[in-house]
Amino acid sequence: MAAPAPRSPLAPAAFPDLPAIPGVTFASAAAGVKYMGRDDVMLAVMAPGTSVAGVFTRSSTRSAPVLDCQVKLGGDLSQGAAFLVNSGNSNAFTGHHGTASVEAITKAVSNSAAVPLSRVFTASTGVIGEPLPHNRIIDVLQNLHASLDPAGISGAAQAIMTTDTFPKGSSATVDIGGKTISIAGIAKGSGMIAPDMATMLVYIFSDAHVEQATLQSMLSELNEKTFNCITVDSDTSTSDSLMIAATGSSGVDATDSDDFRAALKSVMLDLAHQVVRDGEGATKFVEIRVTGATNDADAKTHGMSIANSPLVKTAIAGEDPNWGRVVMAVGKSGAPADRDTLSIRFGYELVAENGWVCANYDEDAAADHMKEQNLSISVDLGMGAGSATVWTCDLTHGYITINGDYRS
Amino acid sequence: MAAPAPRSPLAPAAFPDLPAIPGVTFASAAAGVKYMGRDDVMLAVMAPGTSVAGVFTRSSTRSAPVLDCQVKLGGDLSQGAAFLVNSGNSNAFTGHHGTASVEAITKAVSNSAAVPLSRVFTASTGVIGEPLPHNRIIDVLQNLHASLDPAGISGAAQAIMTTDTFPKGSSATVDIGGKTISIAGIAKGSGMIAPDMATMLVYIFSDAHVEQATLQSMLSELNEKTFNCITVDSDTSTSDSLMIAATGSSGVDATDSDDFRAALKSVMLDLAHQVVRDGEGATKFVEIRVTGATNDADAKTHGMSIANSPLVKTAIAGEDPNWGRVVMAVGKSGAPADRDTLSIRFGYELVAENGWVCANYDEDAAADHMKEQNLSISVDLGMGAGSATVWTCDLTHGYITINGDYRS
Repeated sequence: MAAPAPRSPLAPAAFPDLPAIPGVTFASAAAGVKYMGRDDVMLAVMAPGTSVAGVFTRSSTRSAPVLDCQVKLGGDLSQGAAFLVNSGNSNAFTGHHGTASVEAITKAVSNSAAVPLSRVFTASTGVIGEPLPHNRIIDVLQNLHASLDPAGISGAAQAIMTTDTFPKGSSATVDIGGKTISIAGIAKGSGMIAPDMATMLVYIFSDAHVEQATLQSMLSELNEKTFNCITVDSDTSTSDSLMIAATGSSGVDATDSDDFRAALKSVMLDLAHQVVRDGEGATKFVEIRVTGATNDADAKTHGMSIANSPLVKTAIAGEDPNWGRVVMAVGKSGAPADRDTLSIRFGYELVAENGWVCANYDEDAAADHMKEQNLSISVDLGMGAGSATVWTCDLTHGYITINGDYRS
Repeated sequence: MAAPAPRSPLAPAAFPDLPAIPGVTFASAAAGVKYMGRDDVMLAVMAPGTSVAGVFTRSSTRSAPVLDCQVKLGGDLSQGAAFLVNSGNSNAFTGHHGTASVEAITKAVSNSAAVPLSRVFTASTGVIGEPLPHNRIIDVLQNLHASLDPAGISGAAQAIMTTDTFPKGSSATVDIGGKTISIAGIAKGSGMIAPDMATMLVYIFSDAHVEQATLQSMLSELNEKTFNCITVDSDTSTSDSLMIAATGSSGVDATDSDDFRAALKSVMLDLAHQVVRDGEGATKFVEIRVTGATNDADAKTHGMSIANSPLVKTAIAGEDPNWGRVVMAVGKSGAPADRDTLSIRFGYELVAENGWVCANYDEDAAADHMKEQNLSISVDLGMGAGSATVWTCDLTHGYITINGDYRS
């Protein structure tokens, strides 16, 4: 590994002050899986009664930990649960070694945390194809348990980082029936980010009670509008995992609460945006809004085609309001478009409409917008009521340097 | 425009010596459409009896010239045909101005070349969204006609270049019934190259006679295995055009000749490879062979997923035999794959098999292969008999510089 990259220019000023979540304790430790001199394992232990839900990569070459988590969703709530995550090695494409490592780690955690094996969920992130030295993780389990702390979430956010330049956290509170419940989440991810979830690990915790089946459907549905609407480089990881644990320790049932759902979405969207803001080499955060499409799915197809286009992304890096490349990306997306009803805005500036540059297009104003760090590109197809919003970053020399010069 | 980029390190040593094609004459001229001090218009005039076939971009925002060509295919052979191409301006997304420009140019060529309007095919390549100053082109028509020359094809290849760093040509000869017929073709293209044809213009000529309908089906079919199997950056142009003119001047009917078909394929494949070799910023030419897929279409899906992956392409630029990224690209492609039957070779070096790195993998040998200019990556899915070969280049700082620093 090279020296750590400098903190992204798009990063928030500081890691947020996350509330403790009753029913969850955290610990992190330095196991030396690959990185030296930093924490690389995090453990979260949840109280009995916790509902757990998850969404995972759809990659056909997904990692051993992902395969293990997928069969465990929906287990018995009576005896708590645990999340264990390591960075530095993804335990992906490691054949039978991969499965053996997951078995060894989950058994050890099950014993030490006194939760059933079926409620131990692991994830690994880092280099693909090297056997995971799982004994190094098992060796620090005792220390992890000794240091479990309701306030340990920020250390956990640090421990799961790989090429991330800043730890990612977000929280929200909701009042339900006069009681306040909390939601806090952490995420890692900066490259290999694309729909179907990318190299991204996200863990969200709440002290609300939410029925397991509802929690799963809520998470899956909100994922489509948040993490599945971001892209850094169109590449999809073998390890992506998004998990939520609702401990119920507040005694408040949020199963049917629209406010809870909205608060959860806000936490997920904030974390998703932070992942884009840590996109490898990113210097611009770009919101792409597509309206007037035949339907929402087509709108998202157009949005992602724009967001993934190397020519659009390099133009953004060059601060060039090159709307011709947006036209190109709409044209190639495969979803219906009519050249003659298409309009495009950079920021508030209308640049093209009715199949051509607009009559009073002010290239200087558009170019000024491109100089900002947070950009918006709006495309109206003029065909129907379908809409979607997606987020991406620019494609810069920094991306090439990070991914072409070192094995990450 | 910045100063012209240096000739690609992957370029052939010199422009080939192309044979004159009986029944075709060429001319080129400097109209000053956008570039100054270089030819930017080419004209090819074909004899009566010429069959013409074409394949065009499937972009829904395709240019006015493309729309015009598509309705003209299959016209009357009795009175010859003409191709007129300009560089510097793509006449794409130019609204009614675009259509008016095509009408003005095609009418002028029809008059000056004495061919029916329905047999004048134009193309424009360059910046999107600016009105084409078509009078500058019409103003040089007389000069073009005065300089028409059977040996003018190399000048034509130069005139259609945009960000290309070298002109592209290829030829073949075929003996049919004791007579020799010739095929010669030229192409332009270096960015916005992806399946569905990309910013690429290709013109191929032969003195064979080929029935119009057969010529069209032959061209479409061969296109799937040649130009539609290359990608530089996954972006697709609004202007891609591949056209062939078979003049019949040799008096030889090649309609049912397998040798003609094979020779045509070799010319198309050579031109397609040259386009990849001129990929913006390219330093490596990469052949990706996929075998053992469920069917040929799935093999191509996997191949293109690898060829378009920014993480694979930056690893190649960094000469890193990072096979984990190949696994990732197979996993995300959407086509079926089984992690545990997958094998991967870099050059002749087997790097991974049966879901893991192979037992005697020699990273030094794989790293040596990555240092070469012409690379091969072979993936066997171990599932069926489907196969495909696709070609791409690496993703380098040069690509970012070319596309991020200037409006091309």
